[in-house]
Amino acid sequence: MAMQFELTKEYIDQLRDHIEKSNEVEVFQLVKDLHPADIAEIYDELDIDEARFVHVILDNEVAAEVLVELEEDDRERFLKILPSEDIARFINNLDSDDAADVIGEFSEEKQEEVLSHINDLEQAGDIVDLLHYDEDSAGGLMAKELMTVNENWNIMTCIKEMRKQAEDVDEIYYVYVVDDNNVLKGTLSLKKLLLSASSKKIANIINTDTISVKADTPSEEVANIMDKYGLVALPVVDALNRLVGRITIDDVVDVIREEAERDYQLVSGITQDVESTDSAWVLTRARIPWLFIGLFGGIIAALVMGVYEVDLGINPKMAFFIPLIAAMGGNVGVQSSSIIVQALANNSMGFEGIGRKLLKELGVASINGIILSTVIFIYNYFFSDSFALTLTVSAALFSVIVFASMFGTFIPMFLNKMKIDPALATGPFITTVNDIMGLFLYLMLARAFFSIF
Amino acid sequence: MAMQFELTKEYIDQLRDHIEKSNEVEVFQLVKDLHPADIAEIYDELDIDEARFVHVILDNEVAAEVLVELEEDDRERFLKILPSEDIARFINNLDSDDAADVIGEFSEEKQEEVLSHINDLEQAGDIVDLLHYDEDSAGGLMAKELMTVNENWNIMTCIKEMRKQAEDVDEIYYVYVVDDNNVLKGTLSLKKLLLSASSKKIANIINTDTISVKADTPSEEVANIMDKYGLVALPVVDALNRLVGRITIDDVVDVIREEAERDYQLVSGITQDVESTDSAWVLTRARIPWLFIGLFGGIIAALVMGVYEVDLGINPKMAFFIPLIAAMGGNVGVQSSSIIVQALANNSMGFEGIGRKLLKELGVASINGIILSTVIFIYNYFFSDSFALTLTVSAALFSVIVFASMFGTFIPMFLNKMKIDPALATGPFITTVNDIMGLFLYLMLARAFFSIF
Repeated sequence: MAMQFELTKEYIDQLRDHIEKSNEVEVFQLVKDLHPADIAEIYDELDIDEARFVHVILDNEVAAEVLVELEEDDRERFLKILPSEDIARFINNLDSDDAADVIGEFSEEKQEEVLSHINDLEQAGDIVDLLHYDEDSAGGLMAKELMTVNENWNIMTCIKEMRKQAEDVDEIYYVYVVDDNNVLKGTLSLKKLLLSASSKKIANIINTDTISVKADTPSEEVANIMDKYGLVALPVVDALNRLVGRITIDDVVDVIREEAERDYQLVSGITQDVESTDSAWVLTRARIPWLFIGLFGGIIAALVMGVYEVDLGINPKMAFFIPLIAAMGGNVGVQSSSIIVQALANNSMGFEGIGRKLLKELGVASINGIILSTVIFIYNYFFSDSFALTLTVSAALFSVIVFASMFGTFIPMFLNKMKIDPALATGPFITTVNDIMGLFLYLMLARAFFSIF
Repeated sequence: MAMQFELTKEYIDQLRDHIEKSNEVEVFQLVKDLHPADIAEIYDELDIDEARFVHVILDNEVAAEVLVELEEDDRERFLKILPSEDIARFINNLDSDDAADVIGEFSEEKQEEVLSHINDLEQAGDIVDLLHYDEDSAGGLMAKELMTVNENWNIMTCIKEMRKQAEDVDEIYYVYVVDDNNVLKGTLSLKKLLLSASSKKIANIINTDTISVKADTPSEEVANIMDKYGLVALPVVDALNRLVGRITIDDVVDVIREEAERDYQLVSGITQDVESTDSAWVLTRARIPWLFIGLFGGIIAALVMGVYEVDLGINPKMAFFIPLIAAMGGNVGVQSSSIIVQALANNSMGFEGIGRKLLKELGVASINGIILSTVIFIYNYFFSDSFALTLTVSAALFSVIVFASMFGTFIPMFLNKMKIDPALATGPFITTVNDIMGLFLYLMLARAFFSIF
């Protein structure tokens, strides 16, 4: 029984050694039993010429699957060094959705060149169809390969017809039932088909409670639907309800993962999809935009403090709690915004309107604010010699917690209303605004209290 | 054709109205065609007694599925008001994995009580078996319901046997082939079974390249395997390779989502799984621990500044750039750590050792540091009247960026080595340490430069 392959340093060293000596037979022996996903992982550890050496040794079908499993950037670099004829040969062996994904990354010129080398005209036609759809929609996720039977057939005819269609479809999951106009009527599960007498009419075992999506449904919504209803395949229809393709769960798992990673990176202040194995230059470009926001915020903070320079000169202790106030504003803002961003992403906002949400957040902020400002009040009461400072810090801390949580709650909801991705609001942007606001509140209160006490 | 149900305020108002008037027939009409996942969403909008009114009207099987679809907290509260007999009746209708998940949330006493009311002894036995496994392992994810056939049968016998077993299994996906000792030998795809002549031997169509996992494999690894190899079902075996259950993709999608949400919440400074619809008190408890870390950090920052009180009194402008330095340290640290945390979660660290990773991060940090400190140098050169301050800010900014990125890279890798979840390192902890470190570097450099220039 095949077990999961574990990539070791020894394996890679051995493989590179054979590649260097151009031992084709040994290299083939090393990779022939591996899953394409494992071979793709191996390429990550090889340089591009070594990977090419392995790739041309592989069977066409395996080589094609390996391409699909590669990271987008790696695939792009890799395909650049392969002639269009070879690419076409690989793509011939792929499911239409994977083929379209691969070709979709090329320039239009290169797309045409590769397409012209694809022998299977039906496949080429399917790919051209799929390229029309937005990458992030149901149409961009779906494959054209599926099993359809006519609602008027009986099970016997159905199975005969399926034997004909079976060659093109990897995993069947469901058989789609359509009428004479290709309008989707429902599904047959393979289980029912296998376990029913063959003389039965399809109409007797059809499941008409079939959930389908339109081709322009955004992929996030597709993922939510498949997740919510626990579906492994979802049919895609056009405006007239005619069946045009189907989406399988593996594509949707990718959508869910990518979405989650993107949100995670945004809250961490990283603007594009990067991995720890990317080059230093790519990593820098992904990170510096948010740092510029932070830098800009820091300059504004310096300007705000300039206004209070005299006060700071008289009471240098005023400066002591600036890091505390700024940090708390940032932390609270990120907490508040990330809860809203997740609720928006999961469609779990409930029916509370913006007003109700803000009100509840006000409650949370007030509790947190009272607890934390009491703690710092007690600390300062015992360890600080300035009662004005003690009062200032507690009052400012409470105010900044309330302000930051209101701001952190409101901004993502506002962006969402404006059709802007609310995930942009978490992370450095909210932190920076709250830093400045907290600083301003603090210095203002300090001037007031120091003049009174 | 059933379309996806959209929950509207009007629908809920109508439903509540009928519930208030105890119109059972009208309530049943409103919910009878809905998917359990939709009914669970409706419960979110009702109070607990209203939800119970709906629940007892539902068919047993639907009512059971609704329980599975509820959020864990809601389910717990809801089951508290139902008698054990009713709970047992619902659980009788569930797949063993879902049943074990529901029962697993009870106290041991209540577990025994509910189990004693389950009529189906096989189901009760399966549940007890499953309760032994760790919730976050393959055993905790798997269901006992699966189709097994003996390797020595032919397809005809196989289909006959499957008709017997079919009642218990919702979705088949694969049929597992075992030997006389129940040792897993391989799989049959339903497609092959359906499309092969019925006199064929199973041995001729068996797929022996079957990936399986042991029952104690952690659920994160299970998710990675199913995602990587694009599997919809994964067999689980014991130490002797005997088949004990199977995991289906829908359970793994939940694992992936939960993992991603948890990491997202940790980087945002939220310690337990909360939703925007939770109560203010739950939300407060989830957030305040990280805020205490921030508060503690702020107090240390104040103590550090106390050491430099005299300098701050002489040069109040020194304080102006404290927010900038602190903010940049925090931002850079979170960026660095989140890239490592993601790489660790995805198993995509590559073969670069800790040393190589730190070296590359040093490169990234140096580029970012040079760019940003040059920008702030130019700004201060024109707008600040103190050359000592200009130098201090740029030198401190560069230092803190380098320190924060080294620290942000190292800590998650270190935690991972210590078998502690590295995601704990992103967010407030790293931010707080970097804030303090940045402040310290800045004040130290300021004292030095102000004494020279």
